[in-house]
Amino acid sequence: MPRYKLLLEYNGSNYAGWQIQPNISSIQGKIQEAIKCFCQETTTVYGSGRTDAGVHALGQVAHFDLLVDKDPNELFRALNYYLRGSDISVLNATKVSDEFHARFSASGREYRYDIINRYPTSPLKQGLAWHVRFVLDIESMKEAASLLVGTHDFASFRSIECQSKSSIKTIDHITLERIDDIISIKIGARSFLHNQVRIIVGTLVEIGSGRRDPSDINRLLLEKDRKQAGPTAPPHGLYFLKASY
Amino acid sequence: MPRYKLLLEYNGSNYAGWQIQPNISSIQGKIQEAIKCFCQETTTVYGSGRTDAGVHALGQVAHFDLLVDKDPNELFRALNYYLRGSDISVLNATKVSDEFHARFSASGREYRYDIINRYPTSPLKQGLAWHVRFVLDIESMKEAASLLVGTHDFASFRSIECQSKSSIKTIDHITLERIDDIISIKIGARSFLHNQVRIIVGTLVEIGSGRRDPSDINRLLLEKDRKQAGPTAPPHGLYFLKASY
Repeated sequence: MPRYKLLLEYNGSNYAGWQIQPNISSIQGKIQEAIKCFCQETTTVYGSGRTDAGVHALGQVAHFDLLVDKDPNELFRALNYYLRGSDISVLNATKVSDEFHARFSASGREYRYDIINRYPTSPLKQGLAWHVRFVLDIESMKEAASLLVGTHDFASFRSIECQSKSSIKTIDHITLERIDDIISIKIGARSFLHNQVRIIVGTLVEIGSGRRDPSDINRLLLEKDRKQAGPTAPPHGLYFLKASY
Repeated sequence: MPRYKLLLEYNGSNYAGWQIQPNISSIQGKIQEAIKCFCQETTTVYGSGRTDAGVHALGQVAHFDLLVDKDPNELFRALNYYLRGSDISVLNATKVSDEFHARFSASGREYRYDIINRYPTSPLKQGLAWHVRFVLDIESMKEAASLLVGTHDFASFRSIECQSKSSIKTIDHITLERIDDIISIKIGARSFLHNQVRIIVGTLVEIGSGRRDPSDINRLLLEKDRKQAGPTAPPHGLYFLKASY
């Protein structure tokens, strides 16, 4: 069976997230519908990582199998046609070997989190960045972020609903950059725990506001208690940037 | 009477434009309503330049007079409060001398036009950039743009509804930059004709697509005929960037 790989951009605002669920709009479900429109085949689309309700993607990767061989360029155009008006775009479609798996073959994933940091809201970033009204000290956030890089037990930084057996993960990099009023935080790792990026961002924002000291990160890593970390940052500032293979 | 200057950001998608009109939502009208909510005064807000329906602003400047003296910081917070959910934000509010006029004192204005140039649409730039599907050659667009800089009769590049007595204008600069799939065109001048930026962009896109030669700009400047220039680019890619005083 031929296998196809998709590169996807989507605005997650109007979706219950990546994963297909009954009676509710999902990215996965929408793409499966588009494939069915294109070639009348019912297939499962596998993503490199699930995104929660409201989370966006600039470079989500997915794969699926078809019974019938299709030209990837025809697939690319047809899926974009059937996805028109859906807030989902296919940026690229290629045929891949049947050893490729969007989730299991991924050797790294990168997310970006955007914060609009100023007193007034930003009408042009509405739904696209977290509005944080109080002034954030990016230097103390950078100091805190550096303590998270490496292999740690991130039990304090995962949702209580996280089903991963181990909470030990390795963060390869965290970078923070301020351009005008936007603070962008990029985080890369082989894989992430549920809500890990959003809880890290929520905690960094508390540090940037002065409510926590950067060194508090060391305590949180030792405590292994979700309740000790900061709030889960809202989904609409989060972007799935890319998966590496 | 104390005079106040506002710096404004807005998403123009849901507005009929800057100018107040009966039975329709306008940026000017919305701000005047917010001022009335704040201090019960009915006043006229003057913008540095009108923006058409759907056009955005990152740095529109406006002024208005009040009968009663108000602390600019209080005004800033109150207007943002009354404008919440309106797609309009006040970025700055200051008290200015009564010689300051947002429109007549402006010595320069700058616009930016964003094009998303790739086959698929961009769900994350929806309503924020013009989607041009065919590949644009930015080098020929730059060559054409350089021919527009300086003082010319822009009669070919103004709306047939433009009420300006003279169509002679001076363009100070046009710069084009491609970052990934986004082409941003910045244009600066003391003042502009109605739809001048959007007709210039529509014409540059025809040049970038190869349908016109860059040198065609010279002919258009001589012909002084709106019908000879390209289409008016859609409003949702246009941003009022700033006014200089």
